[in-house]
Amino acid sequence: MNADTIMPLAEFTAQMLPAIEEEMQACISITRNDGLEELHHMLAYHLGWEGAGAEEKASGKRVRPLLVLLSNAAAGGEWQCALPAAAAVELVHNFSLIHDDIQDNSPLRRGRETVWKIWDIPQAINAGDSMFSLAHIALKRLKELIPLEQVIQAQILLPMACLHLTQGQYLDLSYEERDDLSVADYWPMIQGKTSSLIATCTELGALTAGVNDKTQAAYREFGHLVGLAFQVHDDILGIWGDVDITGKSAISDLLEGKKSLPVLYALEQGGEFSQRWSKGPIREDEVADIADLLKNEGAYDYAKKEADTLTQKALHALEQAEPSGSAALALRQLANQLTHRAS
Amino acid sequence: MNADTIMPLAEFTAQMLPAIEEEMQACISITRNDGLEELHHMLAYHLGWEGAGAEEKASGKRVRPLLVLLSNAAAGGEWQCALPAAAAVELVHNFSLIHDDIQDNSPLRRGRETVWKIWDIPQAINAGDSMFSLAHIALKRLKELIPLEQVIQAQILLPMACLHLTQGQYLDLSYEERDDLSVADYWPMIQGKTSSLIATCTELGALTAGVNDKTQAAYREFGHLVGLAFQVHDDILGIWGDVDITGKSAISDLLEGKKSLPVLYALEQGGEFSQRWSKGPIREDEVADIADLLKNEGAYDYAKKEADTLTQKALHALEQAEPSGSAALALRQLANQLTHRAS
Repeated sequence: MNADTIMPLAEFTAQMLPAIEEEMQACISITRNDGLEELHHMLAYHLGWEGAGAEEKASGKRVRPLLVLLSNAAAGGEWQCALPAAAAVELVHNFSLIHDDIQDNSPLRRGRETVWKIWDIPQAINAGDSMFSLAHIALKRLKELIPLEQVIQAQILLPMACLHLTQGQYLDLSYEERDDLSVADYWPMIQGKTSSLIATCTELGALTAGVNDKTQAAYREFGHLVGLAFQVHDDILGIWGDVDITGKSAISDLLEGKKSLPVLYALEQGGEFSQRWSKGPIREDEVADIADLLKNEGAYDYAKKEADTLTQKALHALEQAEPSGSAALALRQLANQLTHRAS
Repeated sequence: MNADTIMPLAEFTAQMLPAIEEEMQACISITRNDGLEELHHMLAYHLGWEGAGAEEKASGKRVRPLLVLLSNAAAGGEWQCALPAAAAVELVHNFSLIHDDIQDNSPLRRGRETVWKIWDIPQAINAGDSMFSLAHIALKRLKELIPLEQVIQAQILLPMACLHLTQGQYLDLSYEERDDLSVADYWPMIQGKTSSLIATCTELGALTAGVNDKTQAAYREFGHLVGLAFQVHDDILGIWGDVDITGKSAISDLLEGKKSLPVLYALEQGGEFSQRWSKGPIREDEVADIADLLKNEGAYDYAKKEADTLTQKALHALEQAEPSGSAALALRQLANQLTHRAS
């Protein structure tokens, strides 16, 4: 840690969040052509900027671009130079959400109607594809900010993360029809669906700061482990989270039959939960009891321990990267929030 | 034209087509991981390499990558250096077909069941997204073959073409519900849906050959005009084409209510066709008569003249690019085939 004034996470985000929105808006605005206003509106609606319920909460927390910018600053970069990469990963994340909502038949996201609910499936597939294209276009401005060699690396890291996302999504969709799954099947799925993009965030932050390969790899490892811990924690909240805090039904994962880590753990135990699960979908009136049953069979403790271990490993990987300044503190703070958060 | 042995189109394609398949297969093969065999199979099935009905015809004609390689050769490049770009545009084209088939509810493509028919909509959306990612990953190998500055340009041209595709698709989908369309609405739609990617093919060919900006722009203009002529010609075949040659029902565009150029022209005339159209979907038993009616009202002659004019303009744009060698002849030959083809 150097002798700079210590700037906590909140001070960084107060500067970074408006800059992220501005970078994304500049990118999305290239779709605002004559006759294409509605397509632009679909994207702006999904990103929380326009339409019914548009407000800060509707935009999501912008965790991924913050990880890019904080990693960049902690690795000694000027975080403004990483803004195109930050916008790109957030657009990738949001393209995947638009398609996820179709695939999962979800009518609501962040308390608002999903894109496919309003504009139907064909236009929602297409809006997702537009967002996907724009994510790659967002990287264009990097050329003005960092060396060409780094730009080209970023332009490969981004679609590789997208490929991993689709590999994780393939597994997640295929698991819906399988009843032979174990905990071992869980990790490759969340590595693709959640962890790979977060690993790409921290790696892009380091890359745009111009660090050496070893440090860049350490930042990637940090993001990879934070991503895994983040998803395990999300699975815990999906069963035992407080509905008033999470904003979504704390019982939804059980009702939806989601094969999350606690469920897969309990299925492996072959106890009472496993017997109930094999008899068909959980009903709303039994959810509270089944959440208790899962806890009694050790699923909560198991998942909590996994999340804690992964978080410790993540923070260890971050130390290997030798982050510096108050951005290093903020990055640790954010990692802890993501993996122990209440919402 | 230089003094080289004149090599007609067939000789170029005999060399180029196997190289294109090899480049694409190398790219797709990175998805062949443990547990992900089925995802790889979906992509290989769609590309015509695997599964029921896998054969050369199932792969499509690979027109777009051929345009990349021939443009490269005609612009003085070594076409092997453009192979990553050729693979990339063909993967973009095929990603869009996987999603189009869902959006249009099409059960068949090139005589085989579509991806969504076999694997359902959620997995088909995801397979398209995988192919989209792989298209961008395909460009990675350019770095070994051409200067960095050109690689970065290619990495922006590709997602820009994808964005234009989605803009054209947005218009096409939105036109389904509109009955106030005129010929003027047609051009921005096909510019996005068809012409932009073909313009990107010829531009990428020129770019990877290292030509100056003016020549690169002339190649793009050539592709842009070929793309427009190609689509108009496709619209003509969709109504008056010979089913034995096109392999699809020659009457399908009328049955599907597609607002193609001949239909939009006739609607503007406000004659007998326009009155019939306003009364509801065309039935199979009246299609032949209505195709004749359209011809009598001048729609065939109008569309044919547009296609011919655009083809002439395209060939003129190509001359501005000063293509050389037998690749120039082959490129002219291909442009003529695409815009006057029987199938």
